[in-house]
Amino acid sequence: MPPNDAIDAAVSAAPGWAGAPPETRAPALTAVAAALEDARAELTALADEETHLGAARLNGELTRTTFQLTLFAEQVREGAFYDARIDAADPEWPTGPRPDLRRYRTAAGPVLVFAASNFPFAFSVAGGDTASAWAAGCPVVVKAHPGHPRLSRRTAEVIGAAGLPDGVFGLIEGEDVGVEALRHPGIAAAAFTGSQRGGLALAKIAAERPVPIPFYAEMGSVNPSVVTPRAARARGEEIVQGYAASLTMGAGQFCTNPGLLFAPAALLDRAARRLRAIGAAPMLNDRIESGYLAGADALAARPGVRRLVWPDGGASAVPRLLTMDLDAFKADIGAAAEECFGPLGLIVTYDRLADLADVLTGLPGQLTASLHAEPDETADLAPLAAVLAGRSGRVLWNQWPTGVSVTHAMQHGGPFPATTAPSTTSVGTAAIDRFLRPVAFQGWPQELLPPPLQDGNPWKVPQTLR
Amino acid sequence: MPPNDAIDAAVSAAPGWAGAPPETRAPALTAVAAALEDARAELTALADEETHLGAARLNGELTRTTFQLTLFAEQVREGAFYDARIDAADPEWPTGPRPDLRRYRTAAGPVLVFAASNFPFAFSVAGGDTASAWAAGCPVVVKAHPGHPRLSRRTAEVIGAAGLPDGVFGLIEGEDVGVEALRHPGIAAAAFTGSQRGGLALAKIAAERPVPIPFYAEMGSVNPSVVTPRAARARGEEIVQGYAASLTMGAGQFCTNPGLLFAPAALLDRAARRLRAIGAAPMLNDRIESGYLAGADALAARPGVRRLVWPDGGASAVPRLLTMDLDAFKADIGAAAEECFGPLGLIVTYDRLADLADVLTGLPGQLTASLHAEPDETADLAPLAAVLAGRSGRVLWNQWPTGVSVTHAMQHGGPFPATTAPSTTSVGTAAIDRFLRPVAFQGWPQELLPPPLQDGNPWKVPQTLR
Repeated sequence: MPPNDAIDAAVSAAPGWAGAPPETRAPALTAVAAALEDARAELTALADEETHLGAARLNGELTRTTFQLTLFAEQVREGAFYDARIDAADPEWPTGPRPDLRRYRTAAGPVLVFAASNFPFAFSVAGGDTASAWAAGCPVVVKAHPGHPRLSRRTAEVIGAAGLPDGVFGLIEGEDVGVEALRHPGIAAAAFTGSQRGGLALAKIAAERPVPIPFYAEMGSVNPSVVTPRAARARGEEIVQGYAASLTMGAGQFCTNPGLLFAPAALLDRAARRLRAIGAAPMLNDRIESGYLAGADALAARPGVRRLVWPDGGASAVPRLLTMDLDAFKADIGAAAEECFGPLGLIVTYDRLADLADVLTGLPGQLTASLHAEPDETADLAPLAAVLAGRSGRVLWNQWPTGVSVTHAMQHGGPFPATTAPSTTSVGTAAIDRFLRPVAFQGWPQELLPPPLQDGNPWKVPQTLR
Repeated sequence: MPPNDAIDAAVSAAPGWAGAPPETRAPALTAVAAALEDARAELTALADEETHLGAARLNGELTRTTFQLTLFAEQVREGAFYDARIDAADPEWPTGPRPDLRRYRTAAGPVLVFAASNFPFAFSVAGGDTASAWAAGCPVVVKAHPGHPRLSRRTAEVIGAAGLPDGVFGLIEGEDVGVEALRHPGIAAAAFTGSQRGGLALAKIAAERPVPIPFYAEMGSVNPSVVTPRAARARGEEIVQGYAASLTMGAGQFCTNPGLLFAPAALLDRAARRLRAIGAAPMLNDRIESGYLAGADALAARPGVRRLVWPDGGASAVPRLLTMDLDAFKADIGAAAEECFGPLGLIVTYDRLADLADVLTGLPGQLTASLHAEPDETADLAPLAAVLAGRSGRVLWNQWPTGVSVTHAMQHGGPFPATTAPSTTSVGTAAIDRFLRPVAFQGWPQELLPPPLQDGNPWKVPQTLR
């Protein structure tokens, strides 16, 4: 479909989809989930051809994708996201007579989704951004990622056959086409998962429109993890095992990859041994592989950086491990804390826990931060824990950040530059908040009120009455 | 206090204020309210000297201001704004074992508030932005409005004596100082109420920082009101009476002023008679008065515009009324729908209701939109009502938009350019949402969790357990 046709169709579909009752919108989402499930074998095979992520991972990711659709269908049925508030008229209100006021959150309008390369299902055509925007009542136009074009088109066909109303979904392709779509006056908001360079360039375009729109970009981070000296002594082997697994999972192609580890020097040899045992894994595509190799080379060349695990030849996509001490890191934090997409680890060695807080405070915003420590040292760790929670969207205790659970309490976001919108999440049920806009109705007749605000509450949504 | 000292103090105060229990934060807000109440006579007198708004209005506004502080103190005690979500670990979760995940919203950090000229209490030093940011747990630095410098300083002294922790409040003055503060790395978010020109210039600065921050600007609008032909016939006199009162209230110096009225031509004479009977009112200051006169002159000179109420001399701040027909308005919508701050009315005459929807769809985003109609014509008005709700943050039925109730269901916001952040409100309890940032804790030890997420729930906040 020509890009402008897709957006025009989304604009036409927007009022109907925003106003559709739960019994229309929820089944539409589950129908897409079912259609994807029916096409599982074909879609995962296609995805593997284009991304090399392997059948196990891709099957798991498709499950995650259909689960997301189902979970958002549940949100639609529950209707809590409308945040329906009804204030009865009150002649005795302290600031003067209060009129009958009713406020809810309605769909923002057509949403443009920029698909990610590294999750060909869960952050792509029918991924979390699409599911949450649909649930909010927004038609979605997806700009396909060029890393998996055939899968994108086939997924779009499967969605197209699932019975969504016309215009509620569209697929467009091409970088220029995506930029043009972002400038289209019919687009009300956009979501993006990818690199900082790409995200910031698009965010600028969104902000410079005649009518600027929200641009929700998740741009990755180095996800600092801290191992305390006591934890290193007590559970060193277990910790490096978890580290190596998390760092190399999916060839390190996760925005929550634990690229930056602060640990006592005693862990270095063990970590190196673990990583050396892990072989090359195919990366998503040549561009990403060469980006990984260049990023690793650049970091290895920074002052004070030493190579712990490094292939002799230097060119294959095996895990690499670098190290530097805390002073060197502090002196070069801008370069040393930059994300390198792939299985590259940097271990910053330190002696005293007390020296860490300052350095961590100086880190750019992060999606996650992890703390590996012993249960009985929590009292000493409060200041450090506060710093980690202040610099990131999710903190973890004795766990690794890869694996982002799709649930109600998930926060997948974080201070800039991890995202452009630190008050939002792109994973979990709260992701729907990005695509809603509040409207209040004052003294409005019942029959013109949207159903969530009517006295009769025909959709049975939670209403807060005051 | 030197500007950087105020911000440094806010940065130092931020963790303590964010983590303060309700029994500390709520009484701090009510203490400020009580201190302002104690100083009522002095403050309102000072405000009248600097703004000419009159004792009645200023006393009412101070009541609104202390009420806001009290209402936000209640929000602090209730704790719903934390949006505490606790997902128990679940080994059977469909996408794989779910860890213990807990998410809440915590304070974003120090907030810079740009005070407004037209509400020297309610949108100024101790106004709604300050109250909602404090309630969220953010220290506040207010950039005083130059329209009421002595009142601003005195209000700051009153706040200073109310016992807030050091650094939780600071006042700075000067346009350059405000811009410099907006660029300060310690500021996490900013709020603004004022003109589109000022708001957009500051929004650009906020967006271009090395670390961009949210900039919540409420920039006013023309607040279209529609009178249906049937309502005009049935209640013409009552409608023009309400219109004239709303248009000239406070010399028209409200961002919700109903500057743009769509009405049958039959109402013109009545409206003109009503407005002619209203004399000159002092405006806030000379700059605003000359802005009003220049804006009125400019609109009067547009093609198709006719003067209905216009002083002979042309220079005094009396109400002015202009008219044009729907075709002329459509042809010049960019200029004709621009806000002119002051008691200037534009009545766009129309014949057929069916012609309105298209024109209203083309309006820039609005804070409010009102519909004056008969109860039994609602069935015909559904499309028009949908357009109005789509272009504004609040719609009103047979009411006028001035007078913004401070309550739970208020929405004072709207699509760009009425605001820079259509998903937020600057009035009502939902205003607190602007200053919060979610953080999730995965597998985190109880003793390191923030109190709202602990099993014991020591602050007794609402927790959603799943």
